[in-house]
Amino acid sequence: MQLTRYTDLSLRVLMYLSYPDRADLVTIAEIATQFDVPRNHLVKVVNQLVKLGWVVATRGRSGGIRLGVPAGSLTIGQILREMEGTKALIDCEGEICVLRNGCRLRGALADALQQFYRTLDGYTLADICSAPTAGLIAQMHRLVPTATH
Amino acid sequence: MQLTRYTDLSLRVLMYLSYPDRADLVTIAEIATQFDVPRNHLVKVVNQLVKLGWVVATRGRSGGIRLGVPAGSLTIGQILREMEGTKALIDCEGEICVLRNGCRLRGALADALQQFYRTLDGYTLADICSAPTAGLIAQMHRLVPTATH
Repeated sequence: MQLTRYTDLSLRVLMYLSYPDRADLVTIAEIATQFDVPRNHLVKVVNQLVKLGWVVATRGRSGGIRLGVPAGSLTIGQILREMEGTKALIDCEGEICVLRNGCRLRGALADALQQFYRTLDGYTLADICSAPTAGLIAQMHRLVPTATH
Repeated sequence: MQLTRYTDLSLRVLMYLSYPDRADLVTIAEIATQFDVPRNHLVKVVNQLVKLGWVVATRGRSGGIRLGVPAGSLTIGQILREMEGTKALIDCEGEICVLRNGCRLRGALADALQQFYRTLDGYTLADICSAPTAGLIAQMHRLVPTATH
């Protein structure tokens, strides 16, 4: 069981943007370089984050992105629910299961998934970006060459 | 986020074997036919289930497999922990993340995963194989041609 790469990238973007001491905006190219991931994979992720209002994008020469909400008001549960979507933990239809029309396993898994998300509602973006993570994120921002600012 | 196909297949095998009114043993070929999945994929799954003692295999002409424990004593939490293994929900090393050495996200996800499994410890194999699932499983067994028994 693993989160999708899409969710993984969205968490990295939000965590990177949680850094509070940045005067200028962050570019997608910068995040791509920092995490060594393809820029085009990030574009799709950032577009959804903008649609959700969690990230604000500004166009133009000195444009870029920043958090659209306080990091303390966004929970990891909210983020994962949105990014993972509503797909069930087991795909009863892909490799069609003969039990799919009356399977109690589905209910048990849905219950457990709800507890999973509820637990993550107890953690905000600010929580997971506090020390020691905060120090690592700050270090990344300090290493950005001024030219890409 | 999805369970691995390996876990999916192991659940199908255990659910199928939960049927109490079967006089003869079940063969892997029979399960492969019933769920329309490749026999060789099931062999690996059944081997692990036998190692865990949850399934008992008998060799020989009228050999086959059956549950090795009462369905009421095996929880879905136990099954998923074993079959999913200890892999984290996010792969920090595969596409190496610069935050991996001090990331609080990891702790939050581990906490949530524990709650997920704890919830599933509240469901036994017998629970998820009760009605209406029981009826579907019984129907499958009744459809087995006597020749493959």
